[in-house]
Amino acid sequence: MIRGLGFRLPLALALLLAPAAPAAAYDVKEIGSYYLGGHMVHVEGLPKQEVQFSTGAPVASYDPNGDVETGQMYVQVVRLTAPLATLPLVFFAGAGFSGSVWESTPDGRPGWQQYFLAHGFDTIVPDAVGRGRSTWSRWPQIYSAAPLFRTAQEGWALFRIGPHYDSNPAKRQAWPGEQFPVQAWDNLVKQFDPRWTTIDGPTQDAYNALVQRECPCILIAHSQGAAFAIAAAVRAPDRVRAIVGLEPRFTPDPAKLDTAKLKGIPMLFIWGDNIDKDPAWENRLANPQKFEAAMRAQGNRFDWVSLPERGIHGNSHMLMMDRNSEQIADIVRDWLAQQGFVH
Amino acid sequence: MIRGLGFRLPLALALLLAPAAPAAAYDVKEIGSYYLGGHMVHVEGLPKQEVQFSTGAPVASYDPNGDVETGQMYVQVVRLTAPLATLPLVFFAGAGFSGSVWESTPDGRPGWQQYFLAHGFDTIVPDAVGRGRSTWSRWPQIYSAAPLFRTAQEGWALFRIGPHYDSNPAKRQAWPGEQFPVQAWDNLVKQFDPRWTTIDGPTQDAYNALVQRECPCILIAHSQGAAFAIAAAVRAPDRVRAIVGLEPRFTPDPAKLDTAKLKGIPMLFIWGDNIDKDPAWENRLANPQKFEAAMRAQGNRFDWVSLPERGIHGNSHMLMMDRNSEQIADIVRDWLAQQGFVH
Repeated sequence: MIRGLGFRLPLALALLLAPAAPAAAYDVKEIGSYYLGGHMVHVEGLPKQEVQFSTGAPVASYDPNGDVETGQMYVQVVRLTAPLATLPLVFFAGAGFSGSVWESTPDGRPGWQQYFLAHGFDTIVPDAVGRGRSTWSRWPQIYSAAPLFRTAQEGWALFRIGPHYDSNPAKRQAWPGEQFPVQAWDNLVKQFDPRWTTIDGPTQDAYNALVQRECPCILIAHSQGAAFAIAAAVRAPDRVRAIVGLEPRFTPDPAKLDTAKLKGIPMLFIWGDNIDKDPAWENRLANPQKFEAAMRAQGNRFDWVSLPERGIHGNSHMLMMDRNSEQIADIVRDWLAQQGFVH
Repeated sequence: MIRGLGFRLPLALALLLAPAAPAAAYDVKEIGSYYLGGHMVHVEGLPKQEVQFSTGAPVASYDPNGDVETGQMYVQVVRLTAPLATLPLVFFAGAGFSGSVWESTPDGRPGWQQYFLAHGFDTIVPDAVGRGRSTWSRWPQIYSAAPLFRTAQEGWALFRIGPHYDSNPAKRQAWPGEQFPVQAWDNLVKQFDPRWTTIDGPTQDAYNALVQRECPCILIAHSQGAAFAIAAAVRAPDRVRAIVGLEPRFTPDPAKLDTAKLKGIPMLFIWGDNIDKDPAWENRLANPQKFEAAMRAQGNRFDWVSLPERGIHGNSHMLMMDRNSEQIADIVRDWLAQQGFVH
């Protein structure tokens, strides 16, 4: 069922992927993390096992029954000694990704976390429930179903890298002018986290708890993350002061939302190129456009940025990792400054 | 099979657990991460599914077959503008934990990562393969077996928190003078990552690759992490300049090891209190003592610190999280300074 792929990164390419120089130095007051949310559940009725836990360890009896935690969220915080921004940024990753997407780009450049730290913003980077350092729970006992594993094939098409994926890197085809750093594609695949489709409820609960703890703040959300971010804002409109959505494809239906709660919250949605090349293209923007219309109708400040319409071409779904990620971060930072969030 | 536990943290206790003031400010040159190691494998023969990936998303066809990555490792790096130490610290977490154990303590104090940053060390914090942000692979197709989930009951005994665990926090019993912050126990349980017992090979490969990339360096290893650290040092003795083991219970049998490779590498092993209360106590120290003897016999600098023999009582297995974690970090830092690793 499994076969190893014989391709190795050539040395010259490996050197190309070496970390670039960081953005800038900055004075840090705190680097740390905490877990929030979740609750204990009691597992019972599972058989005991005899297990060798580690190489060299004696065989031991293992009882899987007892109290385990579920629904918790890992949150990494970096706070500056003298932030220039008036509010911290809270980052919501897209589906199947942990907070690592914000740290560095797959080709080793500084990620948006570092960009915004270097520009004076405190950064709060959680891992959604069930992903990354938030850990996950057994199924079917706690989660109701197994996760889905995203393949490289699926990601290549869905993230709009190009028309043809091949296991052999030399045979892959990217879109003309593709902004994703294609030679580092396999480094993005290393970040794919199993996707749980049955834990949106506890995930939203944890994000809501995060907003209670870290906000007033600005939410920066990628893809599916924007659905959680908007719902969190509806829940705590006094705490969410702005929402930036990077290709937020799964915005809620305004007819099913208490949209009035969002009144006064400025929003910026940014879209890349080649969206009509998305294999799931059909009406992909219909929901976000409906959401935009509802926000504008109630007087929200709403900016919809199509990068190609601004003459910025070739951007993938992974805007914050693309070769021009800093240019896109500049757009976000300028917009935040316009809204008065920078001293 | 599952029942929810009705206990909630009282507000006063929640306030007690609020983050403490950080250790000190420091000037950071880079905060980032990368993935290393691993390889692509091709999954085939699994059935397609119809799936709604996210709330609000259309039902889509999901094909689990294709290329997926396995064996990769997430590595978080923080580099200072002007480190005082001559070498970075590379942290190896214990079994069933990600690198988050080094960031902050369960009761919200600065963790060892922050302690050593504040004292001028660059810090490299990986997540072992299959844990945390390194993500994990499906079984039985890629990993050969399911993981084991550690219960709160097991952890309470194994980490030597006390003689009696109860689902109700008020009924739990800690050892007299216990140094683990018992009121924050549930925050530690939130960090328990499923344990894979069948991926030591790829895990070691990734640690070996990490040493090639980040060292010369000093390895700081907790519990099972020390087994990987020692094996990595045997593989690259020119790159590992010191090993600090925190309760390194699973040291390799020197008779089965090319011990000569480790010649000249100074080592410090630190042990907490109540080790005879460990439910798996029998001869728990026999292997580490055999290892120590072999190192001393070939002239290695080797320091074995029993904290109770130094008059420091009540430490659990989670030394770097205990209430006196800073005192223990001081011991490590003093020892590193003695070895000449601080300017």
